[in-house]
Amino acid sequence: MAKKIAVLGSTGSIGTQTLEVVRELGPGYEVVALAAGKNDHLLREQVEEFKPALAVLDDRGAAERLTKSLRSTGCRVESGRDGQLEAATWPSADLVVMAQVGFSGFEPVVAALEKNKLVALANKESLVVGGEILKRLGLLDRGKLLPVDSEHSAIWQCLGGTPPEQVSRVYLTASGGPFFGREFEELEKVKPEEALKHPNWEMGGKITIDSATMMNKGLEVIEAMWLFGLSLEQIEVVIHRQSIVHSMVEYIDGSILAQLGKPDMRLPIQFALTYPERENNRFERYSPFEKRLDFESPDWDNFPCLGLAYRAVQNGGTMPAVLNSANEIAVKHFIDGRLRFTGIPEVIEKTMGDHQTVKSPETIDILEADRWSRHKAEAVVGELIGRVN
Amino acid sequence: MAKKIAVLGSTGSIGTQTLEVVRELGPGYEVVALAAGKNDHLLREQVEEFKPALAVLDDRGAAERLTKSLRSTGCRVESGRDGQLEAATWPSADLVVMAQVGFSGFEPVVAALEKNKLVALANKESLVVGGEILKRLGLLDRGKLLPVDSEHSAIWQCLGGTPPEQVSRVYLTASGGPFFGREFEELEKVKPEEALKHPNWEMGGKITIDSATMMNKGLEVIEAMWLFGLSLEQIEVVIHRQSIVHSMVEYIDGSILAQLGKPDMRLPIQFALTYPERENNRFERYSPFEKRLDFESPDWDNFPCLGLAYRAVQNGGTMPAVLNSANEIAVKHFIDGRLRFTGIPEVIEKTMGDHQTVKSPETIDILEADRWSRHKAEAVVGELIGRVN
Repeated sequence: MAKKIAVLGSTGSIGTQTLEVVRELGPGYEVVALAAGKNDHLLREQVEEFKPALAVLDDRGAAERLTKSLRSTGCRVESGRDGQLEAATWPSADLVVMAQVGFSGFEPVVAALEKNKLVALANKESLVVGGEILKRLGLLDRGKLLPVDSEHSAIWQCLGGTPPEQVSRVYLTASGGPFFGREFEELEKVKPEEALKHPNWEMGGKITIDSATMMNKGLEVIEAMWLFGLSLEQIEVVIHRQSIVHSMVEYIDGSILAQLGKPDMRLPIQFALTYPERENNRFERYSPFEKRLDFESPDWDNFPCLGLAYRAVQNGGTMPAVLNSANEIAVKHFIDGRLRFTGIPEVIEKTMGDHQTVKSPETIDILEADRWSRHKAEAVVGELIGRVN
Repeated sequence: MAKKIAVLGSTGSIGTQTLEVVRELGPGYEVVALAAGKNDHLLREQVEEFKPALAVLDDRGAAERLTKSLRSTGCRVESGRDGQLEAATWPSADLVVMAQVGFSGFEPVVAALEKNKLVALANKESLVVGGEILKRLGLLDRGKLLPVDSEHSAIWQCLGGTPPEQVSRVYLTASGGPFFGREFEELEKVKPEEALKHPNWEMGGKITIDSATMMNKGLEVIEAMWLFGLSLEQIEVVIHRQSIVHSMVEYIDGSILAQLGKPDMRLPIQFALTYPERENNRFERYSPFEKRLDFESPDWDNFPCLGLAYRAVQNGGTMPAVLNSANEIAVKHFIDGRLRFTGIPEVIEKTMGDHQTVKSPETIDILEADRWSRHKAEAVVGELIGRVN
């Protein structure tokens, strides 16, 4: 019987690559529900190709347009938060791919896990911001949460079901982004165009900047903690410029397993879809003769976002939410040319410094901290701009 | 309850390291039987420390001396082939470590597997020479044969129980030995003292020379075929000078898992002893910051032993036995200074060329081919020496 898949965030980078993988996998995989934000044009094409029973758009206007254009098909169209939750818990779906961006992806993740679905998770915020809540709800320990990020997929593959008590350490690899090795004075002058060019991975704009500031790696450290039940001390970030080793696990006996491959998101996506099996594909393969592999220590001083992520998770409660939203605001202003590259960690640090952490937060506390942090970060950006001009 | 272990070949390099690991592991592991060749002095010390119920020496005179010196202990002493078989099938043993050298280790391996014991295999010849017989006897597919060689342990750890049909390829790493990169003219002049110095591993003399000629890697390719149910085409030898990556497995989806660690035999030995668990230890650990990792193609022309091993296994039947014995003879004469380094493959090739392969051999055919090959190889060495002088 075909494996039935729902994809939330289907029109984004991970969503479209997920559908590409499903297309390549062929008859054993069936798309039963698709959900996106407001791109009704692309979603319509996806519905026509994959013929899901449900299509959802956040945006009501876009959903109305989609309803009209899909009138002749049997596909039901829904919209808004309820529609997203319906897609996340669609009865016939075995596996739900969570490829939305932002904390609005959190509720669908909770809903899908509570319905005991397999969840292939590409939505960082669910774990970074909501990890503590997922843990408290008992949703992390059921083996139902499958990572899609290449680093976390690597760790998962290296673990192969080994319990966390046999793990001594995880080496989370980082490309270092386009500015690794630069000093503060050079980083101050970085232009958005430069930061948007990643040496190894093709990704969306926000995550490419996060990769340049190392915040992406900070968020991934937090994700890895929740996904694999690790302590912060067990995770060591290593710079690996070639992006071939996607992470490593050191066991208590000193043996290290590493996962290697071309930097191609379709590989970890496919593994999550086919798990526990593996399937053949035509993706380009890494050959060990291609390049040398080396590993260096991160530069904590010139890339302070990494340390801020550690500080946020040590603080716990609502602080990771504050880190995440302040970063979003700062990155937006950097891309728009209003904030310096080195202003990004400055905004986050100032915002975090002013936050009163709520311990053991409920979802409502997270949402409140998120709102507060965005507001505060905007104010900090305003001050910095005022100071510069 | 403690895991009960028998060690055959306990006074050799792997045997003594096995006992070192058992000593470090502490109370959870108990030695119940020890067997060796003729070193009654060391075996007596081992018996006094580990207090097995059975001690065996091949050599009858040495066994008599041991009997006397152990009179006050409760340890039974046996000798010869029957003694070895008794140690291999000792009723209370859960796991038998096969660390003998040579094809005489084959019968104990068969006996232990037939008694359904876990067998930690360091005896290369059992698989290289006897693999086809073990396969025919149905002894390879029960998951009872645990590799001890660092490369095979690496593959085993990377596989983590994945069935062979999900494996596309194995990269078997080779240090390349002390002469990698040299041309034929230089290799002709190599002295035994140089060949006996391995850059990364401390091993016995024979295996160090095998490593310098790449024959060791050829034998390991054959071992890997039988151990993991792989075809010859699925195994690719890669030169990896740093001896940190002990091998890699590429899955059908293109994902590669690699096992890394310091070149220290105690690590794979320990994993075989503690499997399926892992245990802490105090061995020095590999840090990814230590060195660059790179991979190169082997030099098939100047190191023809690798190709000869492939040819032997493609030929099948008794040919791997002929390869193995001819190599033993040639290496002996090289160490003794009578044969050039480049004469080693010459002797093996000539011997193999004159052999009439027996297909689907029984043990008796193997033993006969072994005798024939030794005799033939000696004659070839004689001719070569005559020609030179």
